[in-house]
Amino acid sequence: MATVTTQRCANVVGLGLIGGSIAARLVESGWRVHGSDPHPGRCDLAIERGIVSDAGLNPDAEITFVAVPVLQLRGEVAAALAATKGVVTDVGSVKGPLVADVADPRFIGGHPMAGSELDGLDGADPTLFEGATWILTPTSETPDSVFALATAVANQLGANVLALSAEDHDRLIAVVSHVPHLTAATLMTLADRRSEEHASLLRMAAGGFRDMTRIASSKPGLWLDICRANREAIVATLDDFIVGLIDLRGTVDADDSAGLERLLLRAREARSNLPARVRSLEDAVEVRIPIPDRPGSAAQIFTLAAELNVNLANFEVVHSAEGDRGVAVVLVESGQVELLRGGLIARGFKPGR
Amino acid sequence: MATVTTQRCANVVGLGLIGGSIAARLVESGWRVHGSDPHPGRCDLAIERGIVSDAGLNPDAEITFVAVPVLQLRGEVAAALAATKGVVTDVGSVKGPLVADVADPRFIGGHPMAGSELDGLDGADPTLFEGATWILTPTSETPDSVFALATAVANQLGANVLALSAEDHDRLIAVVSHVPHLTAATLMTLADRRSEEHASLLRMAAGGFRDMTRIASSKPGLWLDICRANREAIVATLDDFIVGLIDLRGTVDADDSAGLERLLLRAREARSNLPARVRSLEDAVEVRIPIPDRPGSAAQIFTLAAELNVNLANFEVVHSAEGDRGVAVVLVESGQVELLRGGLIARGFKPGR
Repeated sequence: MATVTTQRCANVVGLGLIGGSIAARLVESGWRVHGSDPHPGRCDLAIERGIVSDAGLNPDAEITFVAVPVLQLRGEVAAALAATKGVVTDVGSVKGPLVADVADPRFIGGHPMAGSELDGLDGADPTLFEGATWILTPTSETPDSVFALATAVANQLGANVLALSAEDHDRLIAVVSHVPHLTAATLMTLADRRSEEHASLLRMAAGGFRDMTRIASSKPGLWLDICRANREAIVATLDDFIVGLIDLRGTVDADDSAGLERLLLRAREARSNLPARVRSLEDAVEVRIPIPDRPGSAAQIFTLAAELNVNLANFEVVHSAEGDRGVAVVLVESGQVELLRGGLIARGFKPGR
Repeated sequence: MATVTTQRCANVVGLGLIGGSIAARLVESGWRVHGSDPHPGRCDLAIERGIVSDAGLNPDAEITFVAVPVLQLRGEVAAALAATKGVVTDVGSVKGPLVADVADPRFIGGHPMAGSELDGLDGADPTLFEGATWILTPTSETPDSVFALATAVANQLGANVLALSAEDHDRLIAVVSHVPHLTAATLMTLADRRSEEHASLLRMAAGGFRDMTRIASSKPGLWLDICRANREAIVATLDDFIVGLIDLRGTVDADDSAGLERLLLRAREARSNLPARVRSLEDAVEVRIPIPDRPGSAAQIFTLAAELNVNLANFEVVHSAEGDRGVAVVLVESGQVELLRGGLIARGFKPGR
């Protein structure tokens, strides 16, 4: 007798680079994916290319990814919540305002840290999230089941989940993404202005300058929305950065080689510690954590792991032998088990050995 | 009867990434290359790897490349001028002080715009300069023969020559290399400081941040020397950059989308105009320019071309049919011929059609 397996279903709203890549990977993994996009013909094209299975929203989909520009997220997330019964998540670069606005517990904010020089559906790549960090921003109201599903699907897309509050996300992402982007643009326009003095200036640009300004070649639209939505954190980070540059200027001007060397050594060391894309844990150990009877426990475990910089892989919730309370099972690098256990105990969890 | 071809000879002082790559390419092209390096054993290793032919300085070498750290250049260039009869050039990142100090007409300053993530002799790569810009900084005292030889050898290494005054070089290189480097380091240390607040910050860094901070991973030593030698231009450029960032901060804070869009569009357009590595001219035309009887004429042709942003390829000096005065023959993209001719006539040259 053949075993009948029900095909898993997802919706993807917005078939650009990120939405297209999510859909492509899910279809590749055997999911049925409904897609929609405001651009006429784009969904048909995605169907033609085998990136999505059907047009429209499937009301019974387990999960709906909303992958539209930042300022359209609120409306599209609300529409998806109204039209479907499953979990809804998004992929926007700013999380605070959206997460505060959408009060529905079926919604969880998300932000996969992956991109490509290619734009739109043409850049859609099922391997885009392989080893990437996928940020989720659960709140204290997020049910374990919602967090667990979003995590499991992000893992299936090849990503590692990092759980942060929406506020932490916005404050931190300004440092590693928004301000670097604006800096690249400022550097590029400075060089462009100077090239009016000497036409060959840009012919002097070698690999370092190209690397630094690469992100300045993306389309402005997305960034206008981001700067509006995350203005406060961006301005605060720019202030810190400007102070850093003024310090540096003083160090160079004073010919303070020792001070400059300290800065450059710190930067070099920090750069070398930048984590590589995590493909698999080297020496993983299973930690079983009974989930207490309070909302948002699974998300709390992940948020704590993020504070401890512990990478959790293969999260799942199983049922304990003793009763119907769930047990979270996570895989952790063996050298980090005690760090995680210490934190869990301090936060009122009872992790097993 | 066999034709006897005399083997061309060069010296390379300093067998790091740049010196090693120069030597490797010349040996590959059939030159005999003498090498020397202060690190014990490095020259032997280079000989073992076939990157140089012999140890020491060949007094009869046509050209000597001095590829040592910026602050050691003056001494090594003087030593090379004393020990050899040929042209001496260097590859340092700052040109003004060196060019002012070395009064010998056999010396011409140089700076190839190429690098690698690999360091030292292990990074030596005969293709490193393929399509790269090689800056030469002739003075009004530089004889045509010296400029012509340095240009021809840079071309043989695969590079395109850009001629600038040493002062222009230092002012412009601060914009496309020195300040970007210091900016990358400042951004990296800012992220590192912020990661003390939240341990997972650096796990949020995706490709854009990695690109922007890549150059912060180089060794500080070189950069301490550069900051000392080019302090004035670096401080002036940092000032401009800081003003640019303060403007930007105001634009974001005021939610001035139109202003921000102008900046981002200008940056995007400038980035897309960044010249790619030139491999060959698409549709090249020969321009013949009789060299007037005044010193430094060949260098003046190139310096003018740089001001006009005209790329000259395949420069050579031939003798005219009418007499013993030289004729410079350059290859130019056909669309740029009239621009170059206009400039040449204005500067007192008599270019042919």
